[in-house]
Amino acid sequence: MELHRLRTEALTKEAFAPFGDVIQVAEAKSHFTINQGWAERYHDLATIDVLDDGGRPILGIVRAEPRPLPLRLRIMERHPRGSQAFVPLQPCSFLVVVALPGEAPAREDFRCFRTVPGQGVNYARGVWHHPLIALERSTDFLVMDRGGAGANCDEAFYDNQQIWLEN
Amino acid sequence: MELHRLRTEALTKEAFAPFGDVIQVAEAKSHFTINQGWAERYHDLATIDVLDDGGRPILGIVRAEPRPLPLRLRIMERHPRGSQAFVPLQPCSFLVVVALPGEAPAREDFRCFRTVPGQGVNYARGVWHHPLIALERSTDFLVMDRGGAGANCDEAFYDNQQIWLEN
Repeated sequence: MELHRLRTEALTKEAFAPFGDVIQVAEAKSHFTINQGWAERYHDLATIDVLDDGGRPILGIVRAEPRPLPLRLRIMERHPRGSQAFVPLQPCSFLVVVALPGEAPAREDFRCFRTVPGQGVNYARGVWHHPLIALERSTDFLVMDRGGAGANCDEAFYDNQQIWLEN
Repeated sequence: MELHRLRTEALTKEAFAPFGDVIQVAEAKSHFTINQGWAERYHDLATIDVLDDGGRPILGIVRAEPRPLPLRLRIMERHPRGSQAFVPLQPCSFLVVVALPGEAPAREDFRCFRTVPGQGVNYARGVWHHPLIALERSTDFLVMDRGGAGANCDEAFYDNQQIWLEN
C-alpha cells in the first residue's frame, strides 16, 4: 500500500482562512485600550457559528496527551452544527490537521499546520479535522463549541491507508 | 475619610457560586475520554448567558498589565446583557473583585478572590466586578462575552472613598 506523507506548514491567518480562524493577538482586526489604561483588548478573534437548533455555546477544557511523530492518521471528524475553538492554556506548539468541508476528504487534501506559542484555532463549522495533536507534554486547551441536542460529529476512517504525519 | 480594607479569599466553586463559575478541570460536573483515548474533556464549565437581542458570543484576548498591591479601587462595572469569562493563557494567579447584582454595591459588599494557576472565572450576567487585576507580569486572558448592539457596560465610581485591596 502506497504511503502518504503529510508535512507541517506554519500556521498563518492567510493559509488557515479556508478552514477557520487563527486566535492570537497578532491577528486581531481591531484592538483598544480598556480598564483605565491597564489592559488592551484584542477583539472578536473568531467566528463563533453555533446553530441554535437546540444547541448553545459551551466552554470546556480538553486535556490532551502528547503524541509522538511520525504519527499515523486514522480518522478525521467534522461538526456540522457548530464551529469549534481550541486555545492552549499554556504557551506551546500543537498540530492542526484539516481539510475543506464536503465529502470525506482524500488524504491528498489534508493540510497540517504547526502553531507557535500564543496561537489557537477556531475550526469553521463543517471543516474536517483530526483530533487535537499535542506535542511534548500533556496540554490543557480551552474549547468553545456547541452543546445540546442533535448529532454534531461525523467521522471518516482511514485505517486502510498509510497516512503518516511527519515533522 | 474612613479607610476600607478588602482582603483576598481563596477562589472556590462554592464561595464564588453567587457570582458565576470557576472554570477549571477540578470543577467539572462531568468529564469523559475523547479522541481514541488521547484526551479527556472536562465538560460545560460555565453558564454562557449572552442575550441575543442583537448580540452574539465573541472571543477575544485581553492583555492585562500587572497591578501593584495594595491597590486603591475606584470603579466597578457590570454587563447587563451577558456573562463574561476570563481564562488566563498561562498558569498564573490573578485577583477577582465582585459584588452581587443589583444597585451599585457598597464597598462593604465587595469580595475579592485570588485564583491559583489553572483557574479562570465566568461572571454571571449583571454581577459587579472590578476590571481584571493581573499580578506579577503582563498576562493574556481569553475572554468570552457578548458582542453587538445595545449598551452592555454600567459603571459605578468610588473615587470619593478610600477602598484598598490588600494581599
